[in-house]
Amino acid sequence: MMSRTLIAPSVLASDFSRLGDEIEAVARAGADWIHLDVMDGHFVPNITYGPPVIKAVRDRTDKVFDCHLMIEPCDPYLAAFAAAGCDIITVHAEATRHLDRSLQAIRDLGKKAGVSLNPSTPESVIEYVLDRLDLVLLMTVNPGFGGQKFIPAVVDKVARVKAMIGERPIDIEIDGGVTAETAPLVAAAGANVLVAGSAVFKGGSEAAYRDNIAAIRAASDAAMG
Amino acid sequence: MMSRTLIAPSVLASDFSRLGDEIEAVARAGADWIHLDVMDGHFVPNITYGPPVIKAVRDRTDKVFDCHLMIEPCDPYLAAFAAAGCDIITVHAEATRHLDRSLQAIRDLGKKAGVSLNPSTPESVIEYVLDRLDLVLLMTVNPGFGGQKFIPAVVDKVARVKAMIGERPIDIEIDGGVTAETAPLVAAAGANVLVAGSAVFKGGSEAAYRDNIAAIRAASDAAMG
Amino acid sequence: MMSRTLIAPSVLASDFSRLGDEIEAVARAGADWIHLDVMDGHFVPNITYGPPVIKAVRDRTDKVFDCHLMIEPCDPYLAAFAAAGCDIITVHAEATRHLDRSLQAIRDLGKKAGVSLNPSTPESVIEYVLDRLDLVLLMTVNPGFGGQKFIPAVVDKVARVKAMIGERPIDIEIDGGVTAETAPLVAAAGANVLVAGSAVFKGGSEAAYRDNIAAIRAASDAAMG
Amino acid sequence: MMSRTLIAPSVLASDFSRLGDEIEAVARAGADWIHLDVMDGHFVPNITYGPPVIKAVRDRTDKVFDCHLMIEPCDPYLAAFAAAGCDIITVHAEATRHLDRSLQAIRDLGKKAGVSLNPSTPESVIEYVLDRLDLVLLMTVNPGFGGQKFIPAVVDKVARVKAMIGERPIDIEIDGGVTAETAPLVAAAGANVLVAGSAVFKGGSEAAYRDNIAAIRAASDAAMG
Amino acid sequence: MMSRTLIAPSVLASDFSRLGDEIEAVARAGADWIHLDVMDGHFVPNITYGPPVIKAVRDRTDKVFDCHLMIEPCDPYLAAFAAAGCDIITVHAEATRHLDRSLQAIRDLGKKAGVSLNPSTPESVIEYVLDRLDLVLLMTVNPGFGGQKFIPAVVDKVARVKAMIGERPIDIEIDGGVTAETAPLVAAAGANVLVAGSAVFKGGSEAAYRDNIAAIRAASDAAMG
Amino acid sequence: MMSRTLIAPSVLASDFSRLGDEIEAVARAGADWIHLDVMDGHFVPNITYGPPVIKAVRDRTDKVFDCHLMIEPCDPYLAAFAAAGCDIITVHAEATRHLDRSLQAIRDLGKKAGVSLNPSTPESVIEYVLDRLDLVLLMTVNPGFGGQKFIPAVVDKVARVKAMIGERPIDIEIDGGVTAETAPLVAAAGANVLVAGSAVFKGGSEAAYRDNIAAIRAASDAAMG
Repeated sequence: MMSRTLIAPSVLASDFSRLGDEIEAVARAGADWIHLDVMDGHFVPNITYGPPVIKAVRDRTDKVFDCHLMIEPCDPYLAAFAAAGCDIITVHAEATRHLDRSLQAIRDLGKKAGVSLNPSTPESVIEYVLDRLDLVLLMTVNPGFGGQKFIPAVVDKVARVKAMIGERPIDIEIDGGVTAETAPLVAAAGANVLVAGSAVFKGGSEAAYRDNIAAIRAASDAAMG
Repeated sequence: MMSRTLIAPSVLASDFSRLGDEIEAVARAGADWIHLDVMDGHFVPNITYGPPVIKAVRDRTDKVFDCHLMIEPCDPYLAAFAAAGCDIITVHAEATRHLDRSLQAIRDLGKKAGVSLNPSTPESVIEYVLDRLDLVLLMTVNPGFGGQKFIPAVVDKVARVKAMIGERPIDIEIDGGVTAETAPLVAAAGANVLVAGSAVFKGGSEAAYRDNIAAIRAASDAAMG
Repeated sequence: MMSRTLIAPSVLASDFSRLGDEIEAVARAGADWIHLDVMDGHFVPNITYGPPVIKAVRDRTDKVFDCHLMIEPCDPYLAAFAAAGCDIITVHAEATRHLDRSLQAIRDLGKKAGVSLNPSTPESVIEYVLDRLDLVLLMTVNPGFGGQKFIPAVVDKVARVKAMIGERPIDIEIDGGVTAETAPLVAAAGANVLVAGSAVFKGGSEAAYRDNIAAIRAASDAAMG
Repeated sequence: MMSRTLIAPSVLASDFSRLGDEIEAVARAGADWIHLDVMDGHFVPNITYGPPVIKAVRDRTDKVFDCHLMIEPCDPYLAAFAAAGCDIITVHAEATRHLDRSLQAIRDLGKKAGVSLNPSTPESVIEYVLDRLDLVLLMTVNPGFGGQKFIPAVVDKVARVKAMIGERPIDIEIDGGVTAETAPLVAAAGANVLVAGSAVFKGGSEAAYRDNIAAIRAASDAAMG
Repeated sequence: MMSRTLIAPSVLASDFSRLGDEIEAVARAGADWIHLDVMDGHFVPNITYGPPVIKAVRDRTDKVFDCHLMIEPCDPYLAAFAAAGCDIITVHAEATRHLDRSLQAIRDLGKKAGVSLNPSTPESVIEYVLDRLDLVLLMTVNPGFGGQKFIPAVVDKVARVKAMIGERPIDIEIDGGVTAETAPLVAAAGANVLVAGSAVFKGGSEAAYRDNIAAIRAASDAAMG
Repeated sequence: MMSRTLIAPSVLASDFSRLGDEIEAVARAGADWIHLDVMDGHFVPNITYGPPVIKAVRDRTDKVFDCHLMIEPCDPYLAAFAAAGCDIITVHAEATRHLDRSLQAIRDLGKKAGVSLNPSTPESVIEYVLDRLDLVLLMTVNPGFGGQKFIPAVVDKVARVKAMIGERPIDIEIDGGVTAETAPLVAAAGANVLVAGSAVFKGGSEAAYRDNIAAIRAASDAAMG
């Protein structure tokens, strides 16, 4: 039976010294998408990696490269991330005052367009761009670092966004503190893509990744009812 | 006989999908230092990588990690780069108005302190911090991208910085367009550490790296006279 | 019979080499207001013109100078635009965190105060300043350049703003992709002032301007029902 | 009988040349909290005072130090204000894009966390952080200067915030133009903490402060019904 | 006999309501270059005009369009000013930390590259970019507004820059308070291009422009000795 | 005999809870000027105090109020500091790209104009504004906090600035780590105004202040030879 949950491991939690192999392993282990956490030290207080690194691993898999830009400004770099091989490019609503323009620019590059909301950001900021969107990424931790605790107040936001998008083909993705315990909460509320970092990469082997992914997926699928 | 030139390969030009292995290979192939090009998309128009990536490869070698911060501001991130395992931390003079403070902060973290100057920046900006410095990094291209052409006007600056530092134990490092052809120019003027990217990593094998490093080193050593 | 639609040609689309004459021509051709698109290269990625240019053409007509500030910050320049002869000064809600203060400042200068919303900005940002407002400018393209396509998602926002303002004497102005085809959509939803650039100035003669204005006005008036 | 209104005199309106004595006087005169208006010249166009000044007067009273940060960014300074002795630290929603993170940081420092909204800011910005909050500070003037006129449009916001917080133990504080005349308006709508500057310190003596505080308190308590 | 002084009238001082005609008039009246003062309200506290205005008048003359960018950042707009028809593009040394890069970018666009220095900026900032330069523009007033008084301290800088450039084919241009009285001071020190605003456009007719230009030119030529 | 050294106690090191009394005490104890350290949390990582605090103590003494602005930008606040009663207003060269303009603005407000240089800043930045200056403030610590150690490398800068100013009536002031031990170093090199914080206010009584000031003054006067 087909899972309705998509699992998007964040490779920031993998062994970056052999990133290509990790991506191959997690792809074989059942990952649906590869989640790429780009941080510039300005929108968030951490610097992770950018286009040259993404480009270096692009040929290791044909899975969807799901790129989450925690950078500001975002518009000057959209073309570079498209050229590096990202399939979905997600910008933060808080990082641009011209959100409609950023989303149009991503689609003009031939990529899928996403918007991400910080835990405190109300969903009203996306009301007028629903027709520009392929994905809404709701943060369940404050972006910047791994290992934070899931914020339950966001679950209500998931449900409201689900209602807002109606029949539009927009994915709802969750990032932050996702585990087999928290996945059902957001899946029940309407999320269908789950980012997980240490919850996927703990164990450090392909076999572990497979089990980890399976556990989150099962918990989520079950909650979807 | 001991070479007087130190070669610092910039791993941004290596295969980033297997960064750990590349660092091991280039270390075995004769690299003296590992040069780390950190870019934040603000000081320069590119985003490369930051502390989490550096930390992931730190245990692959005991070579000096020579970290070049092309970021702004730099002070909030100095501790993170020290914690990630950098041995030398170099900030750009153009990226801080409190250069003496940044250099003190690096040394207070137990690391060696460097300052880098863009091609157009006059050496007068370091005159009053010479006693805080372990390294001066003179850019011979504009920072941000690989593959640019060496700017010969900087050779005069190398000679002037050499004269300014006098007997102080400060390394002079060159970054940008360094090859076996350009190395003698800066070595003759006083540089003793050479960063090279594609000039080292071309060929793509440890054997090639060895030859490439040897060629640059020989050209530089010869010019030192 | 009196038209209920006000037409505000954006002179950025006119022949700027003879701006004074163009303003006179479009005024004679039936323009109600003269729309002035000020861009600073920071709030939007284009630089158009500012106070010295506006002042130079102020005496060519006694039509309302309707000034749309696509600049950030706006407060330091409000007095200069008032002194240059603007009658309405409109700031972007996204360009200030002290919107109530900016609007008070405009009225304290003896001018009418407007606020503009980008296509993605929800109308909730003006809920608490309705009593400070003479005009709401709803962007139906992303500000910065002419010739963009009308964004239909904004039509709903027009209707909601119309409902919010109730009986208050606040104009609702539309800017972006306005033509005889799109005018009825926004007029029906509650807009009463239409900015048009190339749709007015195409043809390049006063006679053409007259026809162009008449066509938009007729389409709008008809839709007002 | 116990007053249900808390009075928080803003010491910016006191005689700053003898701030310690003024704080003691107003504390004896019936102040419940001491309100500290911190401005950095960036979030607002005035510079008032910061941690060293607060620390210098901390031992003059054991009243709650209620610190209102009109600064941006706020996160880098939270620890300094906690160390200076503030009990409540309030940040502006407009001054951070990571509001949930700022509020968590304040509580992690062992302090009570508040959020302040400018007059034009809709209350939707706090909907997802209600569980992080001890206080909501609603500005009834634009922050930056004393002596401004109370903005009545904010009264509706008070009522809506009161409804949003439900049974949560969150104080609603009002700042700007509070007098015995305006206090009842906000008290009736749900506010329970009133900041007052010149309305408390006018008269310039402890006796005057006592009368002034009593008058505001009485007007507010009466309106609470 | 050929004049050795080039006169570059700043059209900001002309009648902007008929800019095309003014440019034609001043060109016929003897202007060598047309000087374009672009201000963005960020590098300087005034907003003048940008690419759309320049493009609108480009076909009125084949004189050199000498564009002085008082904007920051400058790099994102270089291509737009080149496309608008500028022949020389001059950036401020204070507005970029990557001066060598900006100058290369201008030449890569096929245009002549200039650098401008504020009155207080020492000439050492251009020492390492002399080979990238076609023009050095030395400000003799602080940029931002017309009608300021010539700063005599800059005359020494003119002489030093003249010495620095040696035999290189680099023009030295002066902007600010240039009149028939001050022109000899800078011409004697080595300047060969003079910007003048009101000193050229006073009188308001082509005949007046001719006389004004001739007077400045004669005073300058004489001082060149 | 007249002392040639002026002592300027920094009141940031006094008991700020009774600032008026402290200023009176230190004035009676022999202070020549009152030094005011204004920090905005942006140019330096600390927020101290601004115009309202200065104004509150202005009438406590007729000593010169010597105001050191560690803020950025500075121009928007110059008028407020003048209105608050500052006699000398000193801006940081690193905090403005229009230094000549800032200095003119201060003098236009009827105040004396100073410029301050961070420890690493070369004196070349003031070469072209010497005729605008009443004071040069050379930092011998990095601005932002008290209690730092005197940086001896700056002594050479003092001598060079002394030579640059020649016969001009410009004071040379030193700030940072000034004590009876370090005062002779800078006095011998040409400084004539010494800022001291804890070195003056230690002891906490007027008698102590008197002794402390006398000790620094004596050490400095002796070194002046």
